[in-house]
Amino acid sequence: MVWETSSAAVRAFVQEREWSQFHSPENLAKSIAIEAGELLECFQWSSDADPSEVRRELADVLIYCLLLADRVGADVDELITSKIDENARKYPVDRARGRSEKYDRL
Amino acid sequence: MVWETSSAAVRAFVQEREWSQFHSPENLAKSIAIEAGELLECFQWSSDADPSEVRRELADVLIYCLLLADRVGADVDELITSKIDENARKYPVDRARGRSEKYDRL
Amino acid sequence: MVWETSSAAVRAFVQEREWSQFHSPENLAKSIAIEAGELLECFQWSSDADPSEVRRELADVLIYCLLLADRVGADVDELITSKIDENARKYPVDRARGRSEKYDRL
Amino acid sequence: MVWETSSAAVRAFVQEREWSQFHSPENLAKSIAIEAGELLECFQWSSDADPSEVRRELADVLIYCLLLADRVGADVDELITSKIDENARKYPVDRARGRSEKYDRL
Repeated sequence: MVWETSSAAVRAFVQEREWSQFHSPENLAKSIAIEAGELLECFQWSSDADPSEVRRELADVLIYCLLLADRVGADVDELITSKIDENARKYPVDRARGRSEKYDRL
Repeated sequence: MVWETSSAAVRAFVQEREWSQFHSPENLAKSIAIEAGELLECFQWSSDADPSEVRRELADVLIYCLLLADRVGADVDELITSKIDENARKYPVDRARGRSEKYDRL
Repeated sequence: MVWETSSAAVRAFVQEREWSQFHSPENLAKSIAIEAGELLECFQWSSDADPSEVRRELADVLIYCLLLADRVGADVDELITSKIDENARKYPVDRARGRSEKYDRL
Repeated sequence: MVWETSSAAVRAFVQEREWSQFHSPENLAKSIAIEAGELLECFQWSSDADPSEVRRELADVLIYCLLLADRVGADVDELITSKIDENARKYPVDRARGRSEKYDRL
């Protein structure tokens, strides 16, 4: 149960430190944006980045995403698969194949 | 195998549309930052946000995170748990408990 | 000529260091997002922030904004005033007064 | 007085709509990050972007930067020039010329 493993590790880490008091949905959304900026910094001046740095920054984004999912009572897997279903409707294969345009420009 | 389920759904969605050609690590890092901004927009003027909106925007962040993890050949679960181990060393329970300061200010 | 002063200072700083070679519009857009994340970090766990920290991070955002304006051949003042005109049409005073809703929900 | 012109236009736009009630420093910092994400979206899948789109999104970032500067009682020109002085000390010309490394790696 891969996902549960990391979710449980994140929950335990936060609980031991009594940090959930800081984890309002708003603070977690800010934290995700902050960490996304640090991830982007790996690519600030070049398309190439140190893969180990990318992994570490990506992990920070994911950790706050897991915490926000918990906070809004969402199951991450359900969250992702249902959004994929929604996106599949917005981007029909026949019109979206090989194109990066936004759905409203397809 | 929860995690594999969503990972597989994301991979299939991208493959059907031949979109991996656009998914360089740099483009995915940009996409994560862009979606993190849309998630933050749910909280732009208030600490309260529409939970369903939050879930949908959070899902978009997670989807690009999964794609970037794939691209850098990382196992998401391993990524998160090893970062949690690293953070645990930076934030010892006895010093970090109940405090939101950064590790270098503890 | 306040604005010209800071624009000139930024240009000179970059020119002396031969950094314009790194300043593609894309890299500057990434840099603005990265610095915006650092500014947001001042407010990560609280609505209060150290004003001097806020000023320093805000300055970094502004510096990259000036460089991008230069790069796309835009006059910052013209840029801002024409966008204000556009926003004024999207947010008529009588409908927008005292409301934070987006124009499409007014 | 270029800068004063746009600052005044922004202030008048906000005042007419009685929007300063929403403009806490925190909300403005979030707004800057949100708009920086929209600016980055111009470059999501390519290094090329529609210049007019870039100008419009850059203007939104700048408008919120002006409002935050006002809110923290900072003179934008002073803000930028003093940060440039600070950066000049961190990045001595002889060591930083032609290099994109961060100051702590020069």
